[in-house]
This record gives sequence, structure tokens and C-alpha cells, in this order.
Amino acid sequence: MNYVSTAVTPAISPFDHLGLTDVTAKLEDSILIVTLNRSRKLNGFSEKMSVDLVRVFQFGDQDDRVRVIVLTADPAAPAFCAGVDMEEVARGSSLLGRKEDSETEHRDPGGQVAMAIYNNRKITIVAVNGHASGAGLTALQLPFDFRFIWSGSKITMPFVRLGIAPESTSTYLLSRLIGEARAAAVLFSGAVMQPDSPVISNLYYQVLPNRTDVLPAALILARNISTNSSQTSISYSKGLLHHPGASIEEHHLLDSRAMKILGSGNDAAEGAKAFMQRRKPNFPDTLTKSLSPWYPWWKITDVRHPKSSKL
Amino acid sequence: MNYVSTAVTPAISPFDHLGLTDVTAKLEDSILIVTLNRSRKLNGFSEKMSVDLVRVFQFGDQDDRVRVIVLTADPAAPAFCAGVDMEEVARGSSLLGRKEDSETEHRDPGGQVAMAIYNNRKITIVAVNGHASGAGLTALQLPFDFRFIWSGSKITMPFVRLGIAPESTSTYLLSRLIGEARAAAVLFSGAVMQPDSPVISNLYYQVLPNRTDVLPAALILARNISTNSSQTSISYSKGLLHHPGASIEEHHLLDSRAMKILGSGNDAAEGAKAFMQRRKPNFPDTLTKSLSPWYPWWKITDVRHPKSSKL
Amino acid sequence: MNYVSTAVTPAISPFDHLGLTDVTAKLEDSILIVTLNRSRKLNGFSEKMSVDLVRVFQFGDQDDRVRVIVLTADPAAPAFCAGVDMEEVARGSSLLGRKEDSETEHRDPGGQVAMAIYNNRKITIVAVNGHASGAGLTALQLPFDFRFIWSGSKITMPFVRLGIAPESTSTYLLSRLIGEARAAAVLFSGAVMQPDSPVISNLYYQVLPNRTDVLPAALILARNISTNSSQTSISYSKGLLHHPGASIEEHHLLDSRAMKILGSGNDAAEGAKAFMQRRKPNFPDTLTKSLSPWYPWWKITDVRHPKSSKL
Repeated sequence: MNYVSTAVTPAISPFDHLGLTDVTAKLEDSILIVTLNRSRKLNGFSEKMSVDLVRVFQFGDQDDRVRVIVLTADPAAPAFCAGVDMEEVARGSSLLGRKEDSETEHRDPGGQVAMAIYNNRKITIVAVNGHASGAGLTALQLPFDFRFIWSGSKITMPFVRLGIAPESTSTYLLSRLIGEARAAAVLFSGAVMQPDSPVISNLYYQVLPNRTDVLPAALILARNISTNSSQTSISYSKGLLHHPGASIEEHHLLDSRAMKILGSGNDAAEGAKAFMQRRKPNFPDTLTKSLSPWYPWWKITDVRHPKSSKL
Repeated sequence: MNYVSTAVTPAISPFDHLGLTDVTAKLEDSILIVTLNRSRKLNGFSEKMSVDLVRVFQFGDQDDRVRVIVLTADPAAPAFCAGVDMEEVARGSSLLGRKEDSETEHRDPGGQVAMAIYNNRKITIVAVNGHASGAGLTALQLPFDFRFIWSGSKITMPFVRLGIAPESTSTYLLSRLIGEARAAAVLFSGAVMQPDSPVISNLYYQVLPNRTDVLPAALILARNISTNSSQTSISYSKGLLHHPGASIEEHHLLDSRAMKILGSGNDAAEGAKAFMQRRKPNFPDTLTKSLSPWYPWWKITDVRHPKSSKL
Repeated sequence: MNYVSTAVTPAISPFDHLGLTDVTAKLEDSILIVTLNRSRKLNGFSEKMSVDLVRVFQFGDQDDRVRVIVLTADPAAPAFCAGVDMEEVARGSSLLGRKEDSETEHRDPGGQVAMAIYNNRKITIVAVNGHASGAGLTALQLPFDFRFIWSGSKITMPFVRLGIAPESTSTYLLSRLIGEARAAAVLFSGAVMQPDSPVISNLYYQVLPNRTDVLPAALILARNISTNSSQTSISYSKGLLHHPGASIEEHHLLDSRAMKILGSGNDAAEGAKAFMQRRKPNFPDTLTKSLSPWYPWWKITDVRHPKSSKL
């Protein structure tokens, strides 16, 4: 059973240089499977977990072998992720801001993870096979392209009940994903919900009845996409969806240009041929070699603090 | 029965200086309950009602005793709000623009109300216990954080059938709240709907079978939030949701800063302590004393007309 | 039966100068009915079809007799629209970009159609009475105000499986219409769906059990709107929805001005009178004569290529 083995397999060779401890990673065909590795701590979101996740998602973004990245946890763990590790916070970690940081110096680790996932040029899928609170519902769910979840998961964004800020760019993402009416209800009630609640259900691509069903269902989609999709087409599509023009006219200029670029690529030729021959495509283009210099066309704000050595 | 008494109680002492006539107000614990007071006129939206609503919501925004504001009507009234008072319009009120105003001078009273509610730093809840048309569905519903409604309510935005403009910033809010597909259907059909219509249902947090159930259900949520939530956390959360960064990176800078500020506050300390001790929190911070000078961080457009003495 | 006759009626007099071949058009009362006319080619989206659609929607936009535009296909055709005509692409059409065009010179024909529909000042309705793929789901569905569909329609956006870009401004429109969570699922899965799939169902105003039911249902709404709605009110409402202010304050200035303008118009006077007299309105104002010079108030980007003679 896949979901058991992922939880116990140590990090294997291609990831050794990443120094992962709080997550594990393995590459199965073109699918990079990342598993939270702090089951005994309820998979609490730690500073090291955030560093590991940024590293492993950046690896997946840059390595041409990876077409889809799937995040999950051990389905036997007490939780998918119980939120920020409060013991670590009590010991003075940077999770909610270090004492010595100035107001503008703090960089939320959950937000760093969210950006590494949301900006990823590969397809990202999360398989939420347990309860999820705080960062477990923000950083570890919202920035993904697809969310699979166990129907019994208890999920909550408890920020207003803790006197802290909603983190991990959740106030940016949630409204875009499901609209501001639902986003406000989730954020301001701080309520514990289940995935079938109408307030949150639009977030999920598929809801599974058993914890052990979630990763296998996610992997079926992952394999389907990795086998049938063009990496260059995916990366342009994500760029267009996440960075639309300011008007329909400006967007028309963007997607016309993307079409012209991709339409001249090897993947489009192979896609048309496979379509005509009614067979599966075998897309040759890679992000390393085949992206146009125009990509990315949007301005990326540098989030590093000018006077800080951090991040 | 609460909903009856709210309708007949005259404005009490803390609100005397507000000169309310077309709404009444009372403060129950931390909950400011505002009731439309024109039942015999179908709670028609009058110029004075708009002034009263702006005043009472601004009072709620600024008074530290208020944590949640609930708007409702007498459940025995013929309507929750039948829209703009057409008799008053016929008498020349400013509701649809005074004759003597220039094109740029008019300030829609419904929009003034919508801004006072949407920009409120406290949680706002509306309990729609009757039919609602025009401003009764725009100004008096869309800008709220939570909407409760009676399942039998007939609701409509009849603007295209009256030859006028959709008002009260409804074209801004509706699309953000439930997406443009649904917003277009509501606005351009001008149809009379009920809350379970798939076109509009996403707008509502809870739908109640009886008119007299609506306010009590809203008050349960209001008490839960007022007892368990931090005022500073709520105000930052609303700011982040309503004023997101232009990109995920810019938003990361905003919510990192909000986290650093709130994480150093008394409410975060109390929130963590209460969480560890598994008890209800008792948040000490207030908006009057505890907001950082950084708040609000967004630019607020001055909507007053340069050559007009109005608003 | 209306839907049969529309498919076989040749273009009649008011449209002769448009030179339509790949669509037909007829005017019934105030409703312009446009029918795709390439049934034998699965209504494949051709370059000429895009030209015809732009022309006929611009005609509908500008002719005061037209209040609503309905697009449909022959319900007996093998498909509503099977997407871009791949045979034409193979022959070197501009559909995916001509070889001789530079990267910035291509103008996606699907996007040209999408803009002509989305920017239309009249109400637009599509009656999707068959399967729809690619441009059949993007250009020919997303930019409309209302979408009616046959429950058995198989619909898909297969772009990532063809190695090309999502076109027709679909990445702009889909996210606005149904939110980014659903948009990502539709675009990145490339899956074949049916209209009742929760991933896409929010897109549709009405789902009909039989192919022959779709156009009649759309025409009922079309007649209702054309009989009861003000053209000037519709055009301002669409402008406000598609071009909101950058903040609620800026939007308040926009809809206040729109209200002042429309409130002084003949349609508002007639609307109020009809409302008081409980009769149907008979709106006299037309876009040709009654639009304020302020309309349109938004900046429109010129999408023509500076060095190209195209479009």
C-alpha cells in the first residue's frame, strides 16, 4: 500500500542534498511525492518543515523529470497537520515573528511555502488525509492546483480566536479560490468545518470516504496529468490564470502571444499528431530547454528585506 | 422574544446623540443590534434611514464595547426592506440623485451605507427575516460579513427593469462575493429569487425556515464570535481580505507584517495561553488603544465632492 | 420548431452586407438569433466563423432594434462546437498563429470573438445544445451573460493535452466567473465533464434534459429581458460589473454617477411610472441616442499590432 510506504521510506538519493528531515520525498515516474514527517507532533508546521517544503517544491519546479508534485501525510497520523507547532513558537522560532525582528523584517514561513507552491510551474496536488488546522489548511492546501480530502477531516482557520493574523497568504488565496462570501465565513467564524460544509466545499476537487483513499485518488489524477499533459502548456496556463491582464483586451494580448509561442513548439506538433492518430501524446518539450525568454512575463516582487540577511 | 422587543424598544441612552428615527439600536453585551424602524412603509430605504445606518455603524466601529453589529427588521413587518422609498423619490429626495446635482455631485445614499458596513472593523451580520428588493438586497445585505435569511424571502435586484443603475456598490460587491457568472445572472435577469436558488445561494451563511428563527440564529453566531474573537485580529483579517496585495508576493509582505504586529500583542499572548489551558480566551486589546499606526495600510479614496458640502 | 428553422434559414436582408457564411442570423422582434452553420464540420471553429461572429455581435451591439443576442447551433448537429477546425489549422490558418507572424503579432481569433461578446452592450445568451470542446467552451460560452446547456453535453478544455495555450481569454474569464479553484480544475485536468459536474456547474444558468429544449428555454429568458429591460440600464450595469472601481470608494463614485445619469433619463421615468401603475414598461431610450458622453468611462486598450494591418 503506497500510502504506508511513503510514510516510512527515508529520503532517497536525488533529495540527499536537500537535507530533508520534516518531510520525506520520493520520485515515482514523473510524480514527486512529498510526505509530512512529524506524525508524532501532529505534523505540526515547524520552521524546518517550511524550509524543507520550499526546497522540495523548488526542486520539483526545476527538475524536468518532475511533472506533478503531490503532498500528503501518513494516513495513520493523528492529524494531516495541526497547524503551527506551538511548542516551537514558545521556544522562540520565527513562525509568528522573532522578538528581535522589526515590524517590516518578519517573513512568514507559511507564506514562503505558499509562494513556492502557488508559483510552481508543475501541477501541484495535496492529499489531505486527516484533520487540518491553521497552516494545515492555509499553506498546505490553498496554494495547490488540486485538493483531495478525507470526508471526516476537521478543518479550521482559528486565527481570530488566537488573536493572530491569518497567515500564509490565505486572505489573498481564499477569496480568489472560492469568492469573498465564503472566504469571510471561513475566516471570521473561525469555525471547525468538514469538507462537505457548503462554506468550504468548493475548495475541494474530490472528497473521499476513507483516510487511506485520499492519496490513491490523488495519484490517479497525478498519473493522468503527468502522462497526458505538456509541461510547457501547463506552465503557461498557470501563468495566465495566476497573472491575468488588467482587462480582457490586455489578456487577449497575453494569451495570443502564449498561443503563438506554444503553437510553434514541439509539444503542439506532437499534441496535434497524437490527436489525429487517436493515441496518447509523448510530449518532448521541457521547461529547462523550451520556455520562451518571454516567460515569466509578469513582474515578480522581491520579498527579501533590504537590510536583512534572511530568505 | 427578542425579535419583538427589538422592534418596539426606543433608542436607548448611548444612541441618543445619534438622533435615530428610521432604525433603532440597542447594545446587548458586546452585540449592537440595529433594527429597521419603518415597518409600515415596508421598511422602505429612506434618506434618513441611510443617515441613521451610517451613524450607527460608525458608532459600532468606534466604540470598544461593540464587537459585533447585527442588522435586522421586525419579523412581522410586511418586508425586510422593499427597496428605495419611491414616494420619497417622487418628493425629490437624493435617493436617485437630486435634480440640482451635477452628474459628478451625486453620492448614492445606499453606497454610503454599504461603505460604512463593508469598511467596518467589527464583525457585521444581517438577519434578513422578510422579503428584500433593491437596496434591501444590495446596501442591506452585500456589505456584511455574514448573511442569515428566511427561506421564504423573495429577493430581487430589479434595476434593469426600472431603467436605473444597480446601486450601493452592488456591482463591486456581488462579483467579489459569489463570482461574475452568478452576479450577472442576478443583475441582468432582474428576476425574483428565493435563497435556495443556485444563482444566489452562495451568498448566504444560513437559511432558516421561519421568519422568527433568523435573528436568534444570527445572535448565536454573534455571541460566539464576540466571546471568542480578538478585535484586533478581526480588524486586520478584514483589512487583509478586503485589501489584498496586487500579487501573492506583495500580500506575503502584508500578512507577514500583520502577523508580526499581532503576534506581539496582548491578544496573541492571551490566545496562546487560553489555547494551552483549553479555556475560553479573554482578549484585552481594543481598537482604540491597540491598533498599530500602520493600520489601515491601504489608500482610502476621499469620496466627497470637492465643490459640494455634502457627505 | 424554432430550432430547426434557425439552422436552415439563409441570412436575411439586414445581414446581407455582413457576408455571413459560417453562421446564420435572424432578427425576431428584438432578439438576434445567431446559429453556427458548420454542422457537417462539427461546427468546428474556423477563421471565417470568428470573422462572422465578430461582425454579427457588433451589428447587434450597434443596432437599436436588437435588445438580446442568442447564439446556438442546430440541435441535430454532431456537436455544438468541437473546437478549432484542425483541418484548417493544418492548412495554415491563423487560428493558432500563422508561421509568418512574429510572437507579438498574432491575434487569437477566439479572443476577438470573446471580446465582441463580453464587451457587447446588449444581453448575450448562449444555448449550448450539444457537445463543446476548446473554443466551443471558451469563446462560445464564457463571454456570455447567460449560459443554457443540454445536460448530456460533453464539455472540455483540452489545451494542456494538446500542448497549446488556453485561448479566447478563457484564463481571464473563467476565474472571474466561477473562482480560481474551479477554473484551475477545469483547465489543468483537461477532463471531459458534463454540466452537472460540481467543478463547472456554477457556469450555467439552466441545464435542460433534451437538446431541443435548450434554445426554447433561452428564448423565454431572452423575451422576458427584451420586453422588460432598459437598454441604457443594461449597458451601464454591464459596464459597472465588468469594469469595477479599484476600491469600494472608487466604485461608489462610478455607480453614483451612473445612477444620476440614468435617473434623469426617460427610461427611469417610464420605469417608475410602470412600477406605480403595475404594468409592463415600454422603455424609449436607445443606445444610439441616449448614452451619456461619459460612457464608456473605462480605458480600452487598443489590441491592434502597431506594425500589422491585421484587425
